[in-house]
Amino acid sequence: MICGRTQNEAIQEIENFHGFVAPGLLIGAFMVDLLYEHLDKGVEADAIVETRQCLPDAVQIFTPCTVGNGWLKILDLGKFAITMFDRNTFEGYRTWLDLDKARAHPDVYNWFMGLVSKKDLPKEILLPAIMAAGKAILSINKVNVVQYGKRQGKGDIRVCENCNEAYAASQGSPCSACQGNGYYKPVP
Amino acid sequence: MICGRTQNEAIQEIENFHGFVAPGLLIGAFMVDLLYEHLDKGVEADAIVETRQCLPDAVQIFTPCTVGNGWLKILDLGKFAITMFDRNTFEGYRTWLDLDKARAHPDVYNWFMGLVSKKDLPKEILLPAIMAAGKAILSINKVNVVQYGKRQGKGDIRVCENCNEAYAASQGSPCSACQGNGYYKPVP
Repeated sequence: MICGRTQNEAIQEIENFHGFVAPGLLIGAFMVDLLYEHLDKGVEADAIVETRQCLPDAVQIFTPCTVGNGWLKILDLGKFAITMFDRNTFEGYRTWLDLDKARAHPDVYNWFMGLVSKKDLPKEILLPAIMAAGKAILSINKVNVVQYGKRQGKGDIRVCENCNEAYAASQGSPCSACQGNGYYKPVP
Repeated sequence: MICGRTQNEAIQEIENFHGFVAPGLLIGAFMVDLLYEHLDKGVEADAIVETRQCLPDAVQIFTPCTVGNGWLKILDLGKFAITMFDRNTFEGYRTWLDLDKARAHPDVYNWFMGLVSKKDLPKEILLPAIMAAGKAILSINKVNVVQYGKRQGKGDIRVCENCNEAYAASQGSPCSACQGNGYYKPVP
Protein backbone atom coordinates (compact mmCIF):
# COMPACT_ATOMS: atom_id res chain seq x y z
CA MET A 1 0.00 0.00 0.00
CA ILE A 2 1.13 3.56 -0.80
CA CYS A 3 -0.75 6.46 0.75
CA GLY A 4 -3.70 4.20 1.47
CA ARG A 5 -3.88 2.95 -2.13
CA THR A 6 -2.80 -0.26 -3.79
CA GLN A 7 0.16 0.13 -6.13
CA ASN A 8 -2.16 -0.01 -9.13
CA GLU A 9 -4.54 2.58 -7.72
CA ALA A 10 -1.64 4.92 -6.94
CA ILE A 11 -0.25 4.51 -10.45
CA GLN A 12 -3.68 5.14 -11.97
CA GLU A 13 -4.13 8.34 -9.97
CA ILE A 14 -0.68 9.56 -10.97
CA GLU A 15 -1.46 8.93 -14.63
CA ASN A 16 -4.87 10.63 -14.44
CA PHE A 17 -3.52 13.78 -12.85
CA HIS A 18 0.02 14.10 -14.17
CA GLY A 19 -0.62 12.67 -17.63
CA PHE A 20 1.94 9.89 -17.32
CA VAL A 21 3.74 7.88 -14.64
CA ALA A 22 6.79 10.01 -13.95
CA PRO A 23 9.47 8.15 -11.96
CA GLY A 24 9.95 11.14 -9.66
CA LEU A 25 6.27 11.25 -8.88
CA LEU A 26 6.26 7.61 -7.90
CA ILE A 27 9.13 8.27 -5.49
CA GLY A 28 7.14 11.27 -4.29
CA ALA A 29 4.24 8.97 -3.38
CA PHE A 30 6.57 6.98 -1.11
CA MET A 31 7.82 10.26 0.40
CA VAL A 32 4.28 11.34 1.27
CA ASP A 33 3.62 7.89 2.71
CA LEU A 34 6.72 8.17 4.92
CA LEU A 35 5.72 11.66 6.09
CA TYR A 36 2.27 10.45 7.15
CA GLU A 37 3.89 7.60 9.10
CA HIS A 38 5.71 10.21 11.17
CA LEU A 39 3.12 12.98 11.51
CA ASP A 40 0.72 12.72 14.43
CA LYS A 41 -2.70 11.49 13.38
CA GLY A 42 -5.24 14.27 12.99
CA VAL A 43 -2.67 17.03 12.57
CA GLU A 44 -3.58 19.63 9.95
CA ALA A 45 -0.40 19.48 7.93
CA ASP A 46 0.74 21.96 5.30
CA ALA A 47 3.47 21.09 2.79
CA ILE A 48 6.56 22.63 1.26
CA VAL A 49 8.31 21.07 -1.74
CA GLU A 50 11.81 22.10 -2.74
CA THR A 51 11.48 21.67 -6.51
CA ARG A 52 8.87 22.41 -9.16
CA GLN A 53 9.42 19.03 -10.78
CA CYS A 54 7.11 16.12 -10.06
CA LEU A 55 6.94 16.51 -6.28
CA PRO A 56 4.22 19.19 -6.26
CA ASP A 57 1.94 16.69 -7.98
CA ALA A 58 2.75 13.92 -5.47
CA VAL A 59 1.61 16.24 -2.69
CA GLN A 60 -1.45 17.40 -4.62
CA ILE A 61 -2.57 13.86 -5.44
CA PHE A 62 -1.88 12.19 -2.10
CA THR A 63 -2.57 14.94 0.45
CA PRO A 64 -5.27 17.64 0.80
CA CYS A 65 -2.62 20.31 0.08
CA THR A 66 -2.71 22.06 -3.31
CA VAL A 67 -1.06 25.15 -4.74
CA GLY A 68 -4.44 26.80 -5.24
CA ASN A 69 -5.68 26.29 -1.69
CA GLY A 70 -2.40 27.62 -0.34
CA TRP A 71 -1.55 24.60 1.81
CA LEU A 72 1.31 23.63 -0.53
CA LYS A 73 4.19 25.99 -1.20
CA ILE A 74 6.82 25.41 -3.86
CA LEU A 75 10.32 26.73 -3.15
CA ASP A 76 12.88 26.85 -5.93
CA LEU A 77 15.73 25.19 -4.02
CA GLY A 78 16.32 22.54 -6.68
CA LYS A 79 16.14 19.67 -4.20
CA PHE A 80 14.12 16.49 -4.24
CA ALA A 81 12.60 16.97 -0.78
CA ILE A 82 9.20 17.45 0.86
CA THR A 83 8.42 18.89 4.27
CA MET A 84 5.04 18.46 5.94
CA PHE A 85 4.36 20.30 9.17
CA ASP A 86 1.66 21.15 11.68
CA ARG A 87 0.22 24.43 10.40
CA ASN A 88 -0.21 25.70 13.97
CA THR A 89 3.13 24.75 15.57
CA PHE A 90 5.30 24.68 12.38
CA GLU A 91 6.81 21.44 13.64
CA GLY A 92 7.03 18.58 11.20
CA TYR A 93 9.22 16.32 9.10
CA ARG A 94 11.38 16.70 6.02
CA THR A 95 12.12 13.75 3.77
CA TRP A 96 14.57 13.59 0.89
CA LEU A 97 16.10 11.11 -1.50
CA ASP A 98 19.25 10.02 0.33
CA LEU A 99 22.07 9.36 -2.15
CA ASP A 100 23.95 7.07 0.25
CA LYS A 101 20.90 4.84 0.50
CA ALA A 102 19.99 5.12 -3.19
CA ARG A 103 23.36 3.70 -4.28
CA ALA A 104 22.11 0.27 -3.20
CA HIS A 105 19.49 0.64 -5.96
CA PRO A 106 21.65 1.38 -9.01
CA ASP A 107 18.81 1.86 -11.53
CA VAL A 108 17.13 4.43 -9.30
CA TYR A 109 20.43 6.12 -8.46
CA ASN A 110 21.59 6.29 -12.06
CA TRP A 111 18.26 7.69 -13.24
CA PHE A 112 18.14 10.28 -10.47
CA MET A 113 21.69 11.48 -11.09
CA GLY A 114 21.13 11.62 -14.85
CA LEU A 115 23.83 9.01 -15.47
CA VAL A 116 21.82 6.90 -17.87
CA SER A 117 19.67 7.63 -20.94
CA LYS A 118 15.96 6.85 -21.22
CA LYS A 119 16.86 4.41 -23.96
CA ASP A 120 19.23 2.46 -21.72
CA LEU A 121 16.89 2.56 -18.75
CA PRO A 122 13.29 2.33 -20.02
CA LYS A 123 10.35 2.83 -17.67
CA GLU A 124 9.59 -0.88 -17.78
CA ILE A 125 12.81 -1.38 -15.79
CA LEU A 126 12.92 1.88 -13.82
CA LEU A 127 9.37 1.93 -12.40
CA PRO A 128 9.57 -1.59 -10.91
CA ALA A 129 13.00 -0.69 -9.50
CA ILE A 130 11.43 2.32 -7.76
CA MET A 131 8.59 0.15 -6.46
CA ALA A 132 11.11 -2.38 -5.15
CA ALA A 133 13.20 0.32 -3.47
CA GLY A 134 10.16 1.96 -1.88
CA LYS A 135 11.10 3.97 1.20
CA ALA A 136 14.56 2.39 1.52
CA ILE A 137 16.08 5.25 -0.52
CA LEU A 138 14.61 7.99 1.69
CA SER A 139 15.73 9.68 4.87
CA ILE A 140 13.57 11.77 7.17
CA ASN A 141 14.30 14.35 9.88
CA LYS A 142 12.23 16.26 12.37
CA VAL A 143 12.28 19.99 11.59
CA ASN A 144 10.87 23.34 12.61
CA VAL A 145 9.70 25.44 9.68
CA VAL A 146 11.04 28.95 10.31
CA GLN A 147 10.13 30.62 6.99
CA TYR A 148 7.39 30.40 4.34
CA GLY A 149 5.27 28.31 6.71
CA LYS A 150 2.43 30.79 7.18
CA ARG A 151 -0.61 30.71 4.94
CA GLN A 152 -1.10 33.92 3.03
CA GLY A 153 -4.37 35.81 2.88
CA LYS A 154 -5.84 37.48 -0.17
CA GLY A 155 -4.78 41.03 0.66
CA ASP A 156 -6.19 44.24 -0.78
CA ILE A 157 -7.32 44.56 -4.39
CA ARG A 158 -6.66 47.68 -6.46
CA VAL A 159 -7.50 48.69 -10.04
CA CYS A 160 -4.46 49.42 -12.21
CA GLU A 161 -4.52 52.97 -13.59
CA ASN A 162 -2.75 51.76 -16.70
CA CYS A 163 -4.43 48.51 -17.79
CA ASN A 164 -7.64 48.97 -15.80
CA GLU A 165 -7.46 45.41 -14.42
CA ALA A 166 -7.80 44.38 -10.78
CA TYR A 167 -4.59 43.30 -9.05
CA ALA A 168 -3.06 42.71 -5.63
CA ALA A 169 -2.28 46.11 -4.13
CA SER A 170 0.91 44.64 -2.62
CA GLN A 171 2.45 44.69 -6.12
CA GLY A 172 2.78 48.50 -6.04
CA SER A 173 1.46 50.91 -8.67
CA PRO A 174 0.93 50.46 -11.58
CA CYS A 175 0.46 46.69 -11.46
CA SER A 176 3.48 44.40 -11.74
CA ALA A 177 2.70 43.50 -15.36
CA CYS A 178 2.55 47.20 -16.31
CA GLN A 179 5.83 47.72 -14.42
CA GLY A 180 7.43 45.52 -17.08
CA ASN A 181 7.03 42.06 -15.57
CA GLY A 182 4.45 40.88 -18.08
CA TYR A 183 4.87 37.79 -20.23
CA TYR A 184 2.68 38.39 -23.29
CA LYS A 185 1.99 40.75 -26.15
CA PRO A 186 -1.50 41.33 -27.56
CA VAL A 187 -2.16 40.02 -31.05
CA PRO A 188 -4.09 42.67 -33.01
CA MET B 1 -21.86 22.29 -19.01
CA ILE B 2 -18.51 23.54 -17.72
CA CYS B 3 -15.34 22.03 -19.13
CA GLY B 4 -17.32 19.04 -20.40
CA ARG B 5 -18.89 18.38 -16.98
CA THR B 6 -22.31 19.07 -15.56
CA GLN B 7 -22.37 21.80 -12.91
CA ASN B 8 -22.64 19.18 -10.17
CA GLU B 9 -19.74 17.13 -11.53
CA ALA B 10 -17.57 20.24 -11.78
CA ILE B 11 -18.41 21.23 -8.20
CA GLN B 12 -17.68 17.70 -6.98
CA GLU B 13 -14.27 17.66 -8.67
CA ILE B 14 -13.42 21.06 -7.21
CA GLU B 15 -14.35 19.86 -3.73
CA ASN B 16 -12.39 16.61 -4.07
CA PHE B 17 -9.20 18.32 -5.19
CA HIS B 18 -9.29 21.72 -3.50
CA GLY B 19 -11.00 20.61 -0.29
CA PHE B 20 -13.92 23.01 -0.63
CA VAL B 21 -15.77 24.94 -3.33
CA ALA B 22 -13.82 28.19 -3.47
CA PRO B 23 -15.67 30.93 -5.38
CA GLY B 24 -12.53 31.86 -7.30
CA LEU B 25 -12.07 28.27 -8.41
CA LEU B 26 -15.59 28.13 -9.77
CA ILE B 27 -14.91 31.29 -11.79
CA GLY B 28 -11.68 29.63 -12.87
CA ALA B 29 -13.64 26.70 -14.29
CA PHE B 30 -15.57 29.12 -16.52
CA MET B 31 -12.27 30.73 -17.55
CA VAL B 32 -10.84 27.37 -18.65
CA ASP B 33 -14.07 26.65 -20.51
CA LEU B 34 -13.82 29.98 -22.35
CA LEU B 35 -10.16 29.33 -23.24
CA TYR B 36 -10.99 25.94 -24.76
CA GLU B 37 -13.74 27.57 -26.82
CA HIS B 38 -11.07 29.76 -28.42
CA LEU B 39 -8.11 27.40 -28.72
CA ASP B 40 -7.89 25.33 -31.87
CA LYS B 41 -8.96 21.74 -31.30
CA GLY B 42 -6.07 19.37 -30.88
CA VAL B 43 -3.55 22.04 -29.91
CA GLU B 44 -1.16 21.02 -27.15
CA ALA B 45 -1.75 23.96 -24.85
CA ASP B 46 0.36 24.98 -21.86
CA ALA B 47 -0.95 27.36 -19.22
CA ILE B 48 0.19 30.38 -17.22
CA VAL B 49 -1.77 31.70 -14.26
CA GLU B 50 -1.09 35.13 -12.80
CA THR B 51 -1.88 34.38 -9.16
CA ARG B 52 -1.21 31.58 -6.71
CA GLN B 53 -4.75 31.70 -5.40
CA CYS B 54 -7.41 29.31 -6.65
CA LEU B 55 -6.64 29.57 -10.37
CA PRO B 56 -3.77 27.04 -10.38
CA ASP B 57 -6.26 24.44 -9.17
CA ALA B 58 -8.82 25.33 -11.86
CA VAL B 59 -6.16 24.64 -14.48
CA GLN B 60 -4.97 21.47 -12.74
CA ILE B 61 -8.49 20.05 -12.41
CA PHE B 62 -9.87 20.97 -15.83
CA THR B 63 -6.82 20.75 -18.14
CA PRO B 64 -3.91 18.27 -18.46
CA CYS B 65 -1.53 21.00 -17.20
CA THR B 66 -0.11 20.66 -13.67
CA VAL B 67 2.68 22.35 -11.76
CA GLY B 68 4.53 19.06 -11.44
CA ASN B 69 4.46 18.16 -15.13
CA GLY B 70 5.67 21.64 -16.00
CA TRP B 71 2.81 22.51 -18.35
CA LEU B 72 1.42 25.04 -15.86
CA LYS B 73 3.47 27.99 -14.66
CA ILE B 74 2.45 30.28 -11.84
CA LEU B 75 3.55 33.91 -12.05
CA ASP B 76 3.21 36.16 -9.05
CA LEU B 77 1.53 39.09 -10.83
CA GLY B 78 -1.40 39.19 -8.43
CA LYS B 79 -3.99 39.12 -11.19
CA PHE B 80 -7.00 36.90 -11.69
CA ALA B 81 -6.08 35.78 -15.21
CA ILE B 82 -5.18 32.62 -17.11
CA THR B 83 -3.37 32.28 -20.43
CA MET B 84 -3.37 29.08 -22.44
CA PHE B 85 -1.18 28.87 -25.51
CA ASP B 86 0.12 26.52 -28.17
CA ARG B 87 3.36 25.15 -26.70
CA ASN B 88 5.00 25.19 -30.13
CA THR B 89 3.97 28.61 -31.49
CA PHE B 90 3.43 30.42 -28.13
CA GLU B 91 0.22 31.85 -29.56
CA GLY B 92 -2.87 31.64 -27.44
CA TYR B 93 -5.50 33.43 -25.39
CA ARG B 94 -5.59 35.27 -22.09
CA THR B 95 -8.79 35.58 -20.10
CA TRP B 96 -9.41 37.70 -17.02
CA LEU B 97 -12.23 38.81 -14.77
CA ASP B 98 -13.35 42.07 -16.38
CA LEU B 99 -14.46 44.55 -13.72
CA ASP B 100 -16.63 46.51 -16.15
CA LYS B 101 -18.60 43.37 -16.94
CA ALA B 102 -18.61 42.11 -13.34
CA ARG B 103 -20.37 45.24 -12.09
CA ALA B 104 -23.58 43.91 -13.63
CA HIS B 105 -23.29 41.03 -11.13
CA PRO B 106 -23.02 42.89 -7.79
CA ASP B 107 -22.57 39.84 -5.54
CA VAL B 108 -19.67 38.58 -7.64
CA TYR B 109 -18.15 42.04 -7.97
CA ASN B 110 -18.43 42.82 -4.27
CA TRP B 111 -16.92 39.49 -3.29
CA PHE B 112 -14.06 39.83 -5.77
CA MET B 113 -13.18 43.36 -4.68
CA GLY B 114 -13.38 42.42 -0.99
CA LEU B 115 -16.22 44.89 -0.40
CA VAL B 116 -18.40 42.49 1.57
CA SER B 117 -17.83 40.08 4.47
CA LYS B 118 -18.35 36.32 4.30
CA LYS B 119 -21.11 36.77 6.84
CA ASP B 120 -23.01 39.22 4.66
CA LEU B 121 -22.44 37.21 1.49
CA PRO B 122 -22.52 33.50 2.36
CA LYS B 123 -21.59 30.86 -0.19
CA GLU B 124 -25.22 29.85 -0.55
CA ILE B 125 -25.76 33.22 -2.24
CA LEU B 126 -22.34 33.73 -3.85
CA LEU B 127 -21.89 30.39 -5.60
CA PRO B 128 -25.26 30.51 -7.41
CA ALA B 129 -24.48 34.12 -8.39
CA ILE B 130 -21.21 32.94 -9.95
CA MET B 131 -23.03 30.12 -11.74
CA ALA B 132 -25.60 32.57 -13.06
CA ALA B 133 -22.91 35.01 -14.22
CA GLY B 134 -20.90 32.27 -15.94
CA LYS B 135 -18.66 33.66 -18.67
CA ALA B 136 -20.48 37.02 -18.81
CA ILE B 137 -17.93 38.51 -16.34
CA LEU B 138 -14.91 37.46 -18.39
CA SER B 139 -12.99 39.00 -21.27
CA ILE B 140 -10.52 37.23 -23.53
CA ASN B 141 -7.76 38.42 -25.86
CA LYS B 142 -5.46 36.74 -28.33
CA VAL B 143 -1.83 36.96 -27.15
CA ASN B 144 1.70 35.90 -27.95
CA VAL B 145 3.59 34.55 -24.95
CA VAL B 146 7.02 36.18 -25.07
CA GLN B 147 8.44 35.05 -21.69
CA TYR B 148 8.15 32.04 -19.37
CA GLY B 149 6.47 30.04 -22.14
CA LYS B 150 9.20 27.43 -22.60
CA ARG B 151 9.14 24.18 -20.71
CA GLN B 152 12.17 23.68 -18.52
CA GLY B 153 14.26 20.54 -18.50
CA LYS B 154 15.73 18.85 -15.45
CA GLY B 155 19.25 20.24 -15.79
CA ASP B 156 22.40 18.90 -14.16
CA ILE B 157 22.46 17.42 -10.67
CA ARG B 158 25.30 18.06 -8.23
CA VAL B 159 26.03 16.92 -4.67
CA CYS B 160 26.32 19.77 -2.16
CA GLU B 161 29.70 19.79 -0.42
CA ASN B 162 28.06 21.15 2.71
CA CYS B 163 24.85 19.15 3.28
CA ASN B 164 25.74 16.20 1.06
CA GLU B 165 22.34 16.30 -0.66
CA ALA B 166 21.71 16.27 -4.42
CA TYR B 167 20.55 19.56 -5.93
CA ALA B 168 20.17 21.40 -9.23
CA ALA B 169 23.64 22.55 -10.29
CA SER B 170 22.08 25.78 -11.63
CA GLN B 171 21.69 26.95 -8.01
CA GLY B 172 25.45 27.52 -7.66
CA SER B 173 27.69 26.11 -4.95
CA PRO B 174 26.99 25.26 -2.16
CA CYS B 175 23.30 24.55 -2.69
CA SER B 176 20.77 27.36 -2.38
CA ALA B 177 19.59 26.15 1.04
CA CYS B 178 23.17 26.15 2.35
CA GLN B 179 23.62 29.63 0.84
CA GLY B 180 21.07 30.79 3.42
CA ASN B 181 17.81 30.34 1.53
CA GLY B 182 16.59 27.43 3.64
CA TYR B 183 13.27 27.43 5.48
CA TYR B 184 13.74 24.97 8.35
CA LYS B 185 15.86 24.14 11.37
CA PRO B 186 16.55 20.58 12.47
CA VAL B 187 14.95 19.45 15.73
CA PRO B 188 17.54 17.51 17.74
